Amino acid sequence: MDYKKIDENDINRLNEIINDENRVLTGNNINEEYSHDELGGTENYPELVVRVKSTEEVSEVMSYAYKNNIPVTPRGSGTGLVGSCVAIKGGIVIDMTLMDNFLELDEENLNLTLEPGVLLMDIAEYVEDRGYFYPPDPGEKSATIGGNISTNAGGMRAVRYGVTRDFVQGLEVVLPNGEVVQLGGKVMKNSSGYAIKDLIVGGEGTLGIVTKATLRLLPFPSHVISLLIPFPTLEQAIGTVPKIVKSKAIPVAMEFMEREVIMDSEEYLGKRFPDNQSDAYLLLKFDGNSVEEIEGIYEDVAELCLAEGAIDVLISDTDEREESLWDARGAFLEGIRGSTTDMDETDVVVPRDRVNEMVEYTYELQDEVGVRIKTFGHAGDGNLHSYILKDDLSEDEWEEKLELAMGKIYEKAHELEGQVSGEHGIGYAKRKYLKKSLDPAIINIMRGIKHSFDPKNILNPNKII
Amino acid sequence: MDYKKIDENDINRLNEIINDENRVLTGNNINEEYSHDELGGTENYPELVVRVKSTEEVSEVMSYAYKNNIPVTPRGSGTGLVGSCVAIKGGIVIDMTLMDNFLELDEENLNLTLEPGVLLMDIAEYVEDRGYFYPPDPGEKSATIGGNISTNAGGMRAVRYGVTRDFVQGLEVVLPNGEVVQLGGKVMKNSSGYAIKDLIVGGEGTLGIVTKATLRLLPFPSHVISLLIPFPTLEQAIGTVPKIVKSKAIPVAMEFMEREVIMDSEEYLGKRFPDNQSDAYLLLKFDGNSVEEIEGIYEDVAELCLAEGAIDVLISDTDEREESLWDARGAFLEGIRGSTTDMDETDVVVPRDRVNEMVEYTYELQDEVGVRIKTFGHAGDGNLHSYILKDDLSEDEWEEKLELAMGKIYEKAHELEGQVSGEHGIGYAKRKYLKKSLDPAIINIMRGIKHSFDPKNILNPNKII
Repeated sequence: MDYKKIDENDINRLNEIINDENRVLTGNNINEEYSHDELGGTENYPELVVRVKSTEEVSEVMSYAYKNNIPVTPRGSGTGLVGSCVAIKGGIVIDMTLMDNFLELDEENLNLTLEPGVLLMDIAEYVEDRGYFYPPDPGEKSATIGGNISTNAGGMRAVRYGVTRDFVQGLEVVLPNGEVVQLGGKVMKNSSGYAIKDLIVGGEGTLGIVTKATLRLLPFPSHVISLLIPFPTLEQAIGTVPKIVKSKAIPVAMEFMEREVIMDSEEYLGKRFPDNQSDAYLLLKFDGNSVEEIEGIYEDVAELCLAEGAIDVLISDTDEREESLWDARGAFLEGIRGSTTDMDETDVVVPRDRVNEMVEYTYELQDEVGVRIKTFGHAGDGNLHSYILKDDLSEDEWEEKLELAMGKIYEKAHELEGQVSGEHGIGYAKRKYLKKSLDPAIINIMRGIKHSFDPKNILNPNKII
Repeated sequence: MDYKKIDENDINRLNEIINDENRVLTGNNINEEYSHDELGGTENYPELVVRVKSTEEVSEVMSYAYKNNIPVTPRGSGTGLVGSCVAIKGGIVIDMTLMDNFLELDEENLNLTLEPGVLLMDIAEYVEDRGYFYPPDPGEKSATIGGNISTNAGGMRAVRYGVTRDFVQGLEVVLPNGEVVQLGGKVMKNSSGYAIKDLIVGGEGTLGIVTKATLRLLPFPSHVISLLIPFPTLEQAIGTVPKIVKSKAIPVAMEFMEREVIMDSEEYLGKRFPDNQSDAYLLLKFDGNSVEEIEGIYEDVAELCLAEGAIDVLISDTDEREESLWDARGAFLEGIRGSTTDMDETDVVVPRDRVNEMVEYTYELQDEVGVRIKTFGHAGDGNLHSYILKDDLSEDEWEEKLELAMGKIYEKAHELEGQVSGEHGIGYAKRKYLKKSLDPAIINIMRGIKHSFDPKNILNPNKII
């Protein structure tokens, strides 16, 4: 489909809508940041950026773009890893980061209504200060909630609490033609027609633009304890996870990591991790409302780990230790990035008893393809982040080896009954792998759904499918 | 659209597919039960019933029907309340109840794979015997899991644990053209394209027929305690709920009920409820893994209730008392039905701090419309079941008053920012109310979604939209 290129007329009209020249950017005023996301593999400049401040502005911009056949790409803080927020077809980028107001904390219904540009770290501070808890906890705290909704972000507490979709009760959404609709609301249950809200969550900004969200909250658990458990081998560490599950304990989080990744992260943060002497670690977190409630559970799990060959069990029960553990975990991506020249990632999810097979495979692949691969991730929910590193490969070698390694990782995940993405989404970069992994009938249905929302294919085109 | 009527050729072909004459029913062999659901307001006979035993049979029947333009309606045990399983356009009913096998309990991934015809009560027994827990808990235990998936059933534990959609990890689905697809699986997270699985859940059998499901399980909580709390007035009882929420306790369930409904249920069951001296009650449930864990919480809540005017707090901590309480709660619908000649229901959901307004409104409506209305339900999640009773009204009066009362209840729910259905679905009976409550843009998108799955509108036509 041919899209209209933006001309003086369009710029004038968009300036009329926004009525603030600092919020309509063109040409050299468009910062380089707007041409890519965090990982940078997908690059293209938009023709124009609008920094919106209200639902009405989003609606008017969208309506104008729809009528005039101009592609629109919504963007939060650009921390995505699959190119979802990159304007592949040019046109307009709608930057949502100025829509960053908390609108209402409703304590009788236990929910929080806010604008999509609020950052995860600010949500955490806001709710925790008031004794509440928003469980989804991706490593990247400078992501916006709008971005988290668009990829159905998971994070470290998904083992016990679930993912973003489980905590989105209501949405205000601007449809591709500019109409504003309300989905869900403050209700706790809803069986009133097809699950449109749940399609927008994880829709990667291709079906509508979220301009307001109502998030379900929980009371903040008063007691948290983490265990850092060194193992002689990664295989033993990961192999212990299904046994913990079978023992009927449910930690909040179960992460696995290796010494090398820990050391990369120490270097990036300039801070020491509580332990880096062993080859492999499990990092577990437990929460509850009393010491007694947690103690019984974590003591059993600690014993089980020792019986499975753990070298030690290091207990973290002070705020300081908690912070140093989880800050390090949150910096793994940056740490690995700092250790190489360029990289790309996969975010496959497999059943949790297949994690070992998947990780072992990525290690074998290093020799087979001749490229360094680092893997860490959520052992507790089967979601693995594997980073393929360029190091000193030439551009040509890199492209060839990257392509080969990615293809093989996705094939293996499929063989293990896994899926292409656990939480980062498909965006632009992973489209061909999604296409390979899904039944053609499902791809057709997805196309039909996209068409139902966006018959002119104007909103974030060329993403997902 | 004109559908093909079933003729001898079709019957012969379907008999070839099924190859068991006892499982292909026509004419007088079609039991009257197949013409309606539990509530009976929507009635029509199918032309043919197939009692399938495998995915292959469902696929072949569906493929034949699709090619020949014959409408198909899937049916579980027929306990629905909105006519979803009634063959409005005739054609074929696919009875799923013989597909009732447990397929795999996967203890390392904590999930259960089963066929759609398994009954809720059998799932409960199966998992609880093995120390596991499937939280969704609708009152109607003889419903099939397939039916529960189709309406995204909620039930009494939704306050703490969520609804059916939150526990469906994977589905095998036969599409309207007979293709078999796998959605999700044993993975705990998934951000791989649009949420097709979540559309099938709550799709009321209009998008595909579920032939296999993988349900997420939890460890069974070892300790359960319920509190039955009499209040002088219903308003006080319900008004206490948002305060419990604000106190940061999360009961598993928070139900409200009145003496009259309790007495109807006592009569139906032939068993006494632990208390029936007060006008209104809250029934709360707490669970956890130790007495200490629960005690701290329920003692605080009990005090709070007394401070809000509760007459007493009756603690149920034996299996026997638990059973008598929750069996009675499960029999409310049957009890009310036994107290009148005919009835219809609404299943609106409102924010939980608006429950009192909604309930009061249904009481005012009794005088305004001149019809008896009984309301009980899930105070903890805002989902109210209001039953409009025919008593000794003439058919004409009944139809007029029912129409008037239903219309007004849905209007009020909309005004209170509620939705048409919390858990029973839309089916045939509630379509016009859904249409009124949703933005026309959303209705259009829903139509587009239906068309993407079922371009010939062959699967469960005339439902939802």
